Amino acid sequence: MFQSAEQPHEISKFDFKQQEAALREALLEAQFDLVERQAFPLLILLAGLDGAGKGAVLARLGAWLDPHHLHIVAFDRPTDVEKARPRMWRYWYNLPPRGKLGVFVGSWYREPLAAHVIGKRDENALVRELAAINRFEQMLAEEGVLLLKFWLHLSGGESKRRLREIAREEGVRHVVEQRGWKQTRSEIVTVGERIAMDTSTGLAPWVVVPSDNAYYRDLSVGRTILEAVRKRLAAAPVPATPSAPAPIPPLDGRTVLDGLDLESSLSPTDYRRQLAELQQRLGRMTDDRRFRKVGVVAVFEGNDAAGKGGSIRRVTMSIDPRRVRVHSIAAPTDEEKAQPYLWRFWRRLPGRGHVAVFDRSWYGRVLVERIEGFCADRDWLRAYGEINDFEADLTAHGLVIVKFWLAISKDEQLRRFKERENTPFKRYKITDEDWRNREKWDAYALAVNDMVDRTSTEHAPWTLVEAEDKRYARVKVLSTVCDRLEGVL
Amino acid sequence: MFQSAEQPHEISKFDFKQQEAALREALLEAQFDLVERQAFPLLILLAGLDGAGKGAVLARLGAWLDPHHLHIVAFDRPTDVEKARPRMWRYWYNLPPRGKLGVFVGSWYREPLAAHVIGKRDENALVRELAAINRFEQMLAEEGVLLLKFWLHLSGGESKRRLREIAREEGVRHVVEQRGWKQTRSEIVTVGERIAMDTSTGLAPWVVVPSDNAYYRDLSVGRTILEAVRKRLAAAPVPATPSAPAPIPPLDGRTVLDGLDLESSLSPTDYRRQLAELQQRLGRMTDDRRFRKVGVVAVFEGNDAAGKGGSIRRVTMSIDPRRVRVHSIAAPTDEEKAQPYLWRFWRRLPGRGHVAVFDRSWYGRVLVERIEGFCADRDWLRAYGEINDFEADLTAHGLVIVKFWLAISKDEQLRRFKERENTPFKRYKITDEDWRNREKWDAYALAVNDMVDRTSTEHAPWTLVEAEDKRYARVKVLSTVCDRLEGVL
Repeated sequence: MFQSAEQPHEISKFDFKQQEAALREALLEAQFDLVERQAFPLLILLAGLDGAGKGAVLARLGAWLDPHHLHIVAFDRPTDVEKARPRMWRYWYNLPPRGKLGVFVGSWYREPLAAHVIGKRDENALVRELAAINRFEQMLAEEGVLLLKFWLHLSGGESKRRLREIAREEGVRHVVEQRGWKQTRSEIVTVGERIAMDTSTGLAPWVVVPSDNAYYRDLSVGRTILEAVRKRLAAAPVPATPSAPAPIPPLDGRTVLDGLDLESSLSPTDYRRQLAELQQRLGRMTDDRRFRKVGVVAVFEGNDAAGKGGSIRRVTMSIDPRRVRVHSIAAPTDEEKAQPYLWRFWRRLPGRGHVAVFDRSWYGRVLVERIEGFCADRDWLRAYGEINDFEADLTAHGLVIVKFWLAISKDEQLRRFKERENTPFKRYKITDEDWRNREKWDAYALAVNDMVDRTSTEHAPWTLVEAEDKRYARVKVLSTVCDRLEGVL
Repeated sequence: MFQSAEQPHEISKFDFKQQEAALREALLEAQFDLVERQAFPLLILLAGLDGAGKGAVLARLGAWLDPHHLHIVAFDRPTDVEKARPRMWRYWYNLPPRGKLGVFVGSWYREPLAAHVIGKRDENALVRELAAINRFEQMLAEEGVLLLKFWLHLSGGESKRRLREIAREEGVRHVVEQRGWKQTRSEIVTVGERIAMDTSTGLAPWVVVPSDNAYYRDLSVGRTILEAVRKRLAAAPVPATPSAPAPIPPLDGRTVLDGLDLESSLSPTDYRRQLAELQQRLGRMTDDRRFRKVGVVAVFEGNDAAGKGGSIRRVTMSIDPRRVRVHSIAAPTDEEKAQPYLWRFWRRLPGRGHVAVFDRSWYGRVLVERIEGFCADRDWLRAYGEINDFEADLTAHGLVIVKFWLAISKDEQLRRFKERENTPFKRYKITDEDWRNREKWDAYALAVNDMVDRTSTEHAPWTLVEAEDKRYARVKVLSTVCDRLEGVL
């Protein structure tokens, strides 16, 4: 990976100055175009050993580019706020929106590199982690992010010289860090090379930048950015790899929802007793000290008028209001539209010791967006895997994910719609869109069927809730939440 | 993954018969279209537990489709021939070309499933294996293969009934197999579900087929094939995810080739002595009993007239001719063009105890195909990773990969071209194409630079050979082969 960067590459100060003015102007112009057209997000990763010049490149980019649309973030050890959230949260949080330019130093490569440098990981774990990174970057690319990954490489001799120099200039800090390492510089380079190689994919390859000579390094970075932005802005769409065929509907029209017994019900007395018990149980568990190490993400999806709101209230009522938050998911805002579709959910994730309730969720991608054609087939088809990866990240962090589909019959929905229309204080709950969705009843059933099949994982299974009887539904929801939470406490 | 298939799904014999005739006709017509237009290869994978009806589905497909263009392969434990080759070889060997339909039973899912059923693998190893499968299938999809993966699923009750029945009917065989398993049926289903989930990607999702009722099962499979083929045949190209930008050339035009000292030379006396020693050494090693457990894949690339032929001869002369084979790689044949680009190399892989020499190779993808625009940018950009995966497969099998780039100067090439033109018996060696390639000298140098950077892996590094002096080059090639081989014997 570093063969060509081990070659001596030089540009004189004079040549640099000559070329810099034109490059800078062109970069500003390209950036202006990008901003103006809000064409795509540009995300630059800067990696390389200490002393390779990451700071200097940042300074140069800061000087060359319009700082209004440039967001530089250096990721070091996670802060307390970051530690309270899944590992990838801080990267999502800082993703540039369309039209903007983000520069990450450190990035999601920091952990695997650091872990290997101090000699912690085994081979299979590394491979696994790199595969997850590749899937993540592929998702970014497919969501339209232009990802440029620069690996600043110092040749062997130059690298030794700089590390010595840094230690001398900055005192012991780096030397101490170095002493924590179990590997020599050349072993670290080998690990780095391997990581760079395995994560150099067709959609997100590394660009290795020879960095012995600062002028050469900075011009290379600048030119690469310029070429990449220009090409992408000018790019005519090329034909995609044909997407996989969408699943055909079950021949008998029978979906997982048909397995539900909608007659399930609960008497008012039983309901009151069980509800009180469950709410107490949930309250106790979320007040428990042990709860502060975990957290809950509760997803509510279901037919219109199936009673999501009522079920959600029964859950939230049981919990200390400082620990719970309900997120109503409607159409994305402009800011959210300028990001990959999962972004708006990442920003709403609970910290440890908290419960986040999603009234509708990321599953909109494979429900309404699929059915209304808001995204292409290939996009919702890849979403199943992306959502599973997303939820696996949350689970790995200790979050408990509960997912409910509240199901009612078509007749019951009609009854409730009419009741809403006839009850003044409920009228706001029913809109033309509800009636339009109702016409797509069967399409929704099929989408739910595929969704349950493809995203019911061991760690984040779907619970289908018979919601014809509201009492039955609320108790089933609460007891599921309690049981799942109990399982981890 | 199996939730909807756990539902009771039935179609009566009467309904089946009614629908079958039309489906069959439509399938034949779609197949005819596919053949006629040689549109794409259709590869169907059939998976599922014993008794789920794989055999019956095969019989049905055999009855429904034109057998001339249908190739059914059942993969069981590898045969001796298959064991002598890398694990994926037998799947490559049986890949359907464009226009044809292949059905694989067993397939590359056999090993991870079997290993987990008998309880061998650890979690990270499984994740790693599944990631490799996903990359492989993505490559197939991007090469244009329509991949349909059917997972025949029996509901819990039906499954038990069938396994008992099979054991009764066929004697002890399956029972014995079962006794070897360390897990119960439901644990096996859980592993299967997990594998199916993790390998259900956007480009190659699993289709779970409810299989309790044979009519339902067969119609589902038939309909899915029909829909998928029709849609793909009719598909208008959709815009692709924008590809990553191609690497910009080094600003100073300096490539890895500029690091070579082309003055390197060897006197005739030294040459003769060293050559004789090395050839003897190579001969001894390849005759050694231990060599029968490994094998060598030697790749020769280089400038035109750099002396690949002469170097290759010095290698092959040293080896028992029954153990060595030279493959000259020119433009692909029609048959090869109907397959993914790596196919023609898989078919030429050596068995254990053999040496395969490639005079030009799969690196054509990132050299001539890149430079001449024979494939899109995104295609050669993804090829680096695909080639690394390919070579990792070979290495895992015990093959030693040596890769040479023979480099001469532009002046020396001109001298040799002229010499060839002026020497009657060498004139066949020089063509108009050689002269045309010469005009693209710099483009080749850049392509070599990127190739060496991106495919010089720990297990399959490139060796750049200073070939201005033929004697020096031949000795360097031979000694590299000897050293690498010695490392594994």
